[in-house]
Amino acid sequence: MEIAEAGERRIDWAARAMPVLHAVGARFAAERPLDGLKIAACLHVTAETAVLMGALGAGGARIALAASNPLSTQDDVAAALGDYGIAVHARAGVDRETYYRHINAALDIGPDIVLDDGCDLVNTLHTERVELLPGVIGGCEETTTGIIRLRQMAAERALRFPMVAVNDTRTKRMFDNRYGTGQSTVDGIMRATNTLLAGKTVVVAGFGYCGRGVAERAKGLGARVIVTEIDPVKALDATLQGYDVRPMAAAAELGDVFVTVTGNRDVIRGEHLVLMKDGAILANAGHFDVEIDVRALEGLAAAVHRGVRPSTDEYVLPDGRRLLLLAEGRLVNLTAAEGHPAAVMDMSFSAQALAVTWLVREHQGLEPGVYDVPPEVDTEVARLKLDAAGVRVDTLTPDQEAYLHSWRSGTA
Amino acid sequence: MEIAEAGERRIDWAARAMPVLHAVGARFAAERPLDGLKIAACLHVTAETAVLMGALGAGGARIALAASNPLSTQDDVAAALGDYGIAVHARAGVDRETYYRHINAALDIGPDIVLDDGCDLVNTLHTERVELLPGVIGGCEETTTGIIRLRQMAAERALRFPMVAVNDTRTKRMFDNRYGTGQSTVDGIMRATNTLLAGKTVVVAGFGYCGRGVAERAKGLGARVIVTEIDPVKALDATLQGYDVRPMAAAAELGDVFVTVTGNRDVIRGEHLVLMKDGAILANAGHFDVEIDVRALEGLAAAVHRGVRPSTDEYVLPDGRRLLLLAEGRLVNLTAAEGHPAAVMDMSFSAQALAVTWLVREHQGLEPGVYDVPPEVDTEVARLKLDAAGVRVDTLTPDQEAYLHSWRSGTA
Amino acid sequence: MEIAEAGERRIDWAARAMPVLHAVGARFAAERPLDGLKIAACLHVTAETAVLMGALGAGGARIALAASNPLSTQDDVAAALGDYGIAVHARAGVDRETYYRHINAALDIGPDIVLDDGCDLVNTLHTERVELLPGVIGGCEETTTGIIRLRQMAAERALRFPMVAVNDTRTKRMFDNRYGTGQSTVDGIMRATNTLLAGKTVVVAGFGYCGRGVAERAKGLGARVIVTEIDPVKALDATLQGYDVRPMAAAAELGDVFVTVTGNRDVIRGEHLVLMKDGAILANAGHFDVEIDVRALEGLAAAVHRGVRPSTDEYVLPDGRRLLLLAEGRLVNLTAAEGHPAAVMDMSFSAQALAVTWLVREHQGLEPGVYDVPPEVDTEVARLKLDAAGVRVDTLTPDQEAYLHSWRSGTA
Amino acid sequence: MEIAEAGERRIDWAARAMPVLHAVGARFAAERPLDGLKIAACLHVTAETAVLMGALGAGGARIALAASNPLSTQDDVAAALGDYGIAVHARAGVDRETYYRHINAALDIGPDIVLDDGCDLVNTLHTERVELLPGVIGGCEETTTGIIRLRQMAAERALRFPMVAVNDTRTKRMFDNRYGTGQSTVDGIMRATNTLLAGKTVVVAGFGYCGRGVAERAKGLGARVIVTEIDPVKALDATLQGYDVRPMAAAAELGDVFVTVTGNRDVIRGEHLVLMKDGAILANAGHFDVEIDVRALEGLAAAVHRGVRPSTDEYVLPDGRRLLLLAEGRLVNLTAAEGHPAAVMDMSFSAQALAVTWLVREHQGLEPGVYDVPPEVDTEVARLKLDAAGVRVDTLTPDQEAYLHSWRSGTA
Repeated sequence: MEIAEAGERRIDWAARAMPVLHAVGARFAAERPLDGLKIAACLHVTAETAVLMGALGAGGARIALAASNPLSTQDDVAAALGDYGIAVHARAGVDRETYYRHINAALDIGPDIVLDDGCDLVNTLHTERVELLPGVIGGCEETTTGIIRLRQMAAERALRFPMVAVNDTRTKRMFDNRYGTGQSTVDGIMRATNTLLAGKTVVVAGFGYCGRGVAERAKGLGARVIVTEIDPVKALDATLQGYDVRPMAAAAELGDVFVTVTGNRDVIRGEHLVLMKDGAILANAGHFDVEIDVRALEGLAAAVHRGVRPSTDEYVLPDGRRLLLLAEGRLVNLTAAEGHPAAVMDMSFSAQALAVTWLVREHQGLEPGVYDVPPEVDTEVARLKLDAAGVRVDTLTPDQEAYLHSWRSGTA
Repeated sequence: MEIAEAGERRIDWAARAMPVLHAVGARFAAERPLDGLKIAACLHVTAETAVLMGALGAGGARIALAASNPLSTQDDVAAALGDYGIAVHARAGVDRETYYRHINAALDIGPDIVLDDGCDLVNTLHTERVELLPGVIGGCEETTTGIIRLRQMAAERALRFPMVAVNDTRTKRMFDNRYGTGQSTVDGIMRATNTLLAGKTVVVAGFGYCGRGVAERAKGLGARVIVTEIDPVKALDATLQGYDVRPMAAAAELGDVFVTVTGNRDVIRGEHLVLMKDGAILANAGHFDVEIDVRALEGLAAAVHRGVRPSTDEYVLPDGRRLLLLAEGRLVNLTAAEGHPAAVMDMSFSAQALAVTWLVREHQGLEPGVYDVPPEVDTEVARLKLDAAGVRVDTLTPDQEAYLHSWRSGTA
Repeated sequence: MEIAEAGERRIDWAARAMPVLHAVGARFAAERPLDGLKIAACLHVTAETAVLMGALGAGGARIALAASNPLSTQDDVAAALGDYGIAVHARAGVDRETYYRHINAALDIGPDIVLDDGCDLVNTLHTERVELLPGVIGGCEETTTGIIRLRQMAAERALRFPMVAVNDTRTKRMFDNRYGTGQSTVDGIMRATNTLLAGKTVVVAGFGYCGRGVAERAKGLGARVIVTEIDPVKALDATLQGYDVRPMAAAAELGDVFVTVTGNRDVIRGEHLVLMKDGAILANAGHFDVEIDVRALEGLAAAVHRGVRPSTDEYVLPDGRRLLLLAEGRLVNLTAAEGHPAAVMDMSFSAQALAVTWLVREHQGLEPGVYDVPPEVDTEVARLKLDAAGVRVDTLTPDQEAYLHSWRSGTA
Repeated sequence: MEIAEAGERRIDWAARAMPVLHAVGARFAAERPLDGLKIAACLHVTAETAVLMGALGAGGARIALAASNPLSTQDDVAAALGDYGIAVHARAGVDRETYYRHINAALDIGPDIVLDDGCDLVNTLHTERVELLPGVIGGCEETTTGIIRLRQMAAERALRFPMVAVNDTRTKRMFDNRYGTGQSTVDGIMRATNTLLAGKTVVVAGFGYCGRGVAERAKGLGARVIVTEIDPVKALDATLQGYDVRPMAAAAELGDVFVTVTGNRDVIRGEHLVLMKDGAILANAGHFDVEIDVRALEGLAAAVHRGVRPSTDEYVLPDGRRLLLLAEGRLVNLTAAEGHPAAVMDMSFSAQALAVTWLVREHQGLEPGVYDVPPEVDTEVARLKLDAAGVRVDTLTPDQEAYLHSWRSGTA
C-alpha cells in the first residue's frame, strides 16, 4: 500500500516533466482511439512508462506490462500501476527464467498491439507463442538494438506483422539517444563512483546517436574523450568534432573510464582488459549486457569485491590492478541512475502513443516489415514540446512557400 | 602567363590538402573509366574544383567548365585550367547575361554527363537547350538548394535524366555543410569586419547541417547564438544543444551579427531590418543571394557607403543606424573568405568523382529522378580520408558480425 | 561496529583517488613534522577529510574534529575515524545548539593549530573561548566565505594569529572551486530531481571560481546559462565567454534551475521568487544557507510538501506555481550528492597539510593576519598530481632560463 | 593624401568598436588632464592605437609615436595620424637599424610619460638615452613580455621610474590576452593557410592567458588541442579543462599546427622540427620572434619557398617533408591577420589612458618599480563596456553590503 503511494508520487513527479504526453493523453481521453484493443508491452517499468500506460489506457486500451530489463523495474511504480488497472508482470532483480515468464504472462492477454524495447517480447511471440501471431495488427519497438533484430527478422521474412521503428524518429534519436542516454550515463557513472570527470580520459565505444551523446556530456564535464568505431564515416565525423579516434586495443591503456554503446557484443574483451590502468571504470550504456565481456573479466580476476560502491564491483587482476565494473555490465544509466529523465521520455513515448493510433488506422494497408514513424508524428511531437517550453518558431510566408516549390528561379 | 602560374601554385596548394581525390585520380589514370565521355560542369571555379577537373581528366573525360556563381571565380585558377586542356568559361564579377552565356558555352560541348552546383546548368539545359537532353546519361548536383529544385522538377516529371544528389551523402553533409560552411563563414565575417565574436550575439537563420556548422563555430569563438527555424524538429534540437531559439522578429533587435543559411528567400526582410541595432552585420551563407532582402535594405537606406571594409557595404538608416551588408548578400564564405578549405572539398569532390563512374556503370538501369550516392561511395571516401590522416578504426570480429545479423539472442 | 566498517570502506575508496595526499602522508610518517602538536579542526566530516586526518596523524598531531556543516556529516566515516584515534564531535542532522557544542568540544583539546571551513571555529575561539587564544600558533581556512570573514576580522584587528588562506591557492581555486563545485553541484541537482539539463535555462548567481565551474558544467550538459553578478569585471568576463548576463530580477522569470554561489546572503529574494516559472528548481552551492531567502519562500507558500524527491521540498504558491527547493537551501553538492570528488580534495587537503607544516616552521615570524599559501606549496602539489596521472611537462633549457631573467635582449 | 584618407577610414572603423575609449576621450577633452605633458610611445601603429592617440591628444598631451614591431605598421594609419598632429616614426617592413632609429626619434620629444609595448623603448631609454631619464615621471607597459623585462630591471634596481603594468589588469588579461589573442591568432592561421581546423591537432605551447585563449578558439573550431607547459599548476589546469598535456618532444610528431605563446625563446627547436609531419604549420603568437628557432629551421631545410601563400614560407626538409612557417615566426595575429579586434583594444587602451592620468596624479608618491593598475580603473573600464553593450548587473542591497563586511554571522 505504502509502496504504491511512493510509486504514485514518483509517477506524479515524472508526469510534470511530460507535457506532451499529457496533451496526447487528454486528446485520447476525448477521442478513445484504442477502445476495445489489447496491448502487450515489454518496457522498462518506470514512472515515465507509467505515464505512457496512463495515456494509452485513457485512449481505451487494456494493457499487460512486463519488464524489458531484469534490473530496471521500479517496484513502487509497478505497485502503483496495479491501481490504474494495468496488469504488471515485473519485479526488480529477477533471474532469466522469471524474466521470460513475465514476458509470457504479458502475452497471455492476447495482444492486438505489442510495444517492445529490445525485441524480447516480439521474439518470444515469434518463437514460443506463435498461436498469438494472427491476432496482432502491429507494434512499436523503442531501441536501436531491437530495430537491428527486427530488420534482420524482416530480411529473413520471419517477421509477421508491421513494426514501427519508434527508435528511428528524428525526435527519438535526438532526445532519447543523444540527450537522454548522454546525461543519464554520466549521471550513472557519477552516482556509482563519485569520480571527477574533469581531466579524465573517457573512452566511448560507438559513435551513433547514443555514443555521440555520451561523448558530448563527458567532454562537457571536462573529460578528454577517445572514440572507437567500426564505421569509417562515423569515425571521421568524430575526428572532425575534435575527438581522438583509435581502435580499442590502442585506447585500452589510456582510458580512465570506458563506456560501451554500440549495440554489439564483446566490444571490450579480455585482450583489452589486460591492458587497462589500475582503477579503470567499465560501464555499458548499450541495451544488452553483452558489450563488455564480463565472463572474460571474471576469468582474469584473482579476486572480486562486490559492492565497493553502489552498483560497483571491483575485479582485482593477479598483478594487483583493480578494474571497476558498474551495474554488472548492464545499462548503467538505468541501474546506477534513474534512466532517461522524464522530459526525454515525454518525446519518445508521445511518438509511440501517436504511432499506435497510426497503426490502428493504417494497419490494413501495411505488409509485415519495419516502418518509420510518419514524419508528421515527429513534427507534431516537436511542436507540442516547443509550445510547452514557450519557444516560438518562424512560419513560411506565401512567397517563401512558393520559392521552395519552384525550380525555375536561379541565379539572378 | 604569370596569372596562370599564380593559379598553378594555388592549385598545387589545394592539392596537398586533398589526399583522397589524389588517390581517386591515381586510380582513374590507371583505369580510364571516363574515356570518350564529355562533361559539362557548372561549379565554383576555384583551386579545389581544378583538382577535381584534373582527376576527371585523368579518367579520360573531356570537360567544359562554367562558373556557378558570378563572383566566386578565381581568375588565376581559370587561366591555369586552360593549360590542363579544360575549356573554361568563367571570369570574376560578370553580369547576369554573361553568367548564363558562360553556362551555354559549357553546354556547347554536348555533354554525356553534367555536374551542377545550384541547378542553373541543369535548368538551362531543360529550358533553353532541350536539343542536348537526349545525349545526357546523368549528372551530379552539389548543393542543398540545387537538390530542392531537382526534386521539384522530378515531382513535376520535368527532369529528364538521373541526377545524383552529391549533397545528400553523409560525408558531404558532414564535411562541406557542417565543417566547411561553418569555418569558412566565420572566417569570411572576420576577414570582412575584424569584429570580435566573443561576447557578441550571432543570429543564425536555419539549423540544417550548414546552419548547425555556423552556430557551432560562432559558439566556439565565444558568441552567444540565437537560432531561427521553421521546422519544429530542428528548432527543438537547437534548444537541446543550448541555443536560444526565437522567431526572426524577436531576434532582430538582439543580434550583432546575422547569418542566413536556409535555402529560402527573404529570411531577413524589411520588417526585421528596421528593428536592428546600430552596427549590425548581415551575412548570407546560403547558395543564392536571396536570403537577405537587399532591395528592402536599399529601399530603407538614406545613404549607402560601399567598401567601408573589404566586402562590406554600409547602409545608413534615416535615424542614423548603420547596417553592414557583407558580400552584397552573396555567399560570404566564398566572397569574403576563400570558400571551403580544400580538406573539405577533398571529400565531396571525391564522392562526386566516384559517383560519376557509378553513373557511367549504372545509368541504363536508372529512371530520370534524384538518386542518393550509394553508401559504399561514402564509406570508401571516409576510409581513404582516415587513412590519409593516420587514424585507425576497429573491425568486427566474426562473432560480432554474426551477432549483428542474428535476431535470436536477447536478454540472457 | 558495522557502521565503522562501512566508513572504513568509504575512506579506502576516497584514498584511492588521493595519490598526492598519500605521498604527503608517507613523507609525514617518515619526518614527523607535527610531533607533539594539537589540532582542532572544523571540517565537513567526510571520507576525504578522514584521509587528511590520517596524514596529519601520521605526522604526529593529536586531533579533535567537529563538523563544519550540520547536514554534511557522514556518520559511518565519523565512526571509523574513532578507530584512528581522532576525537570526532559530529553527527548528521544536528541543530544549531549541538553544532556549536561540537565546535566547543573540539576546541577543548587546546589547539596549537586550527583548521576551519567557514570560520565558525575561529569565530567561536575569538568570542567564546578567548582563554585558548594564546596557545594557538596559527591555522588554515578552506572557503571563500571564511576568508571574507577573516579578512574583515584582520581589518578590524580582531584576528589574533596568522591564518593561511588555503582557499586562495591556485590549485584550490582551480580544483575545489571550479572543477569540484562545478561537477558536484550539477550532480546534486541531477540526483535530487533527475531533470534533463539539456535545453533548460540555468541561472548561476555569482561568477567567481565556483560560479564559473557551475556555469561550465551546466553548459557542458546542454543548458543555456544566464549569469548574474555584481562585479562589472566578472560580468564582462561572463559575457565574453558567451553567457547571457542579466540582473536577477530579469533572470527570475526565465530560469528553469537557479544556483546561488556568491558568498553573500539573500541573493534570491521574495521579489524574485514571485516571478518564477512553475517547476523552477532552487539550489544553493555557496557555503552558508543564506543565499536563497528560505524564510521569504516559506512566507509566500500556500503549502509545502517535503521530500517530493530526495533532498527536494516543494513550495506551492497561492496561484498554484510550484517552486522546488533543494537541500533546504544548504550546500546542494554536499547534501544531495557527495560533495567534491576525492580527486579534488586530494589537491586542497595536500595544500592544507603542507601549509600546516609551513606554519609550524614559520609562525614565529608571522604577525596575526591572513596569509597566502606559499607558491612553492602550490607547485609541489600540482607536480605530485601530474606525476600520479602520468602527465609530463617541459623543463626550461639553460638558455631559456637565462632569457627569462634578462631584460636586455629585445626586438632583433 | 589618398593613403591618409584610407587611414582615416580605417581609424573611423576602429573607433566604432571602441565606445569605452570614446567615453574616456570625451571626458579628457572636457577635463584636459594631460595639458602640457609630452608622451613618447612605442606601440603597434594601427587604427586602434590611433584612437588612443586621439584620446590622449584630446586630454592635452603632445605625442611622438614609434612602432613596436617592424612588420605591424599600417602605413595608411601612420599617414593619417600626421593629420592629428602626432609625430609618427614608423613604416611597415623596416630593418633593425631603422626600427631603433624610429624609437630614438620618438624619444627626442623628451618625454614626461612613456608608453611601451615590449619594453624596447624603455630599454633604449635606460641604455642609450639616459640623459632623458630625469624628465620621465613614469609610464605604461602593455605586454607580458615587457613586464617580465621590467620586473627583472626592477629586481636589479636598474629601473628608474614607476611603470604601470597595464598588461596585468584583469580586463587586459581577459580581453587582450585571452579573447583578443585567441581569435586573432586562429584568424591569422586561417587567412594565411585556409586550412580546415576541425579534426586537426593543434599544439599550443604555453597555457597563460594568451595560450588559453588560443587553445579555446582552436577547440571551438573543432581541433584537438595539445598543450605544452613548464609550470605544473598551469599544466594541471589544462588537463582539467580536457586538454592533452605533453612535452613538446612528444607533441612534435602529433601536431598539424603549432602555436607558440610562452614569452620565452626556442620553444620549438631543431630537435622538435625534425620530428614533425609533412605539412606541419608553425605560427608564433608571442610578442618576440624568438619562440620558434627559425635559424634552426633554416639550417635544416634543403630548400625554402617564400610566399607559397600569404605570410607563408615553405621549408623543405632533405627527406621531402614540408614545414610551413607563418609570418617569419613573428606575431601571426598581427602579420597574417589584423591583430586584436578594436573591441579588445578598447578595453586595454582605455585602461592605459586612465592609468596615465593616475600616474600624473600619483607619481610623486611612487618609487621606481612595476605597479599594478589600480582596481578602480579596471572596474570603471568594465562598467563602461557593459553599459555600451546594454548589459546590466546587480547591485548590493544594504543588508548584503553589511553581510560582506561582518564576520560575526555564521552557521545559523
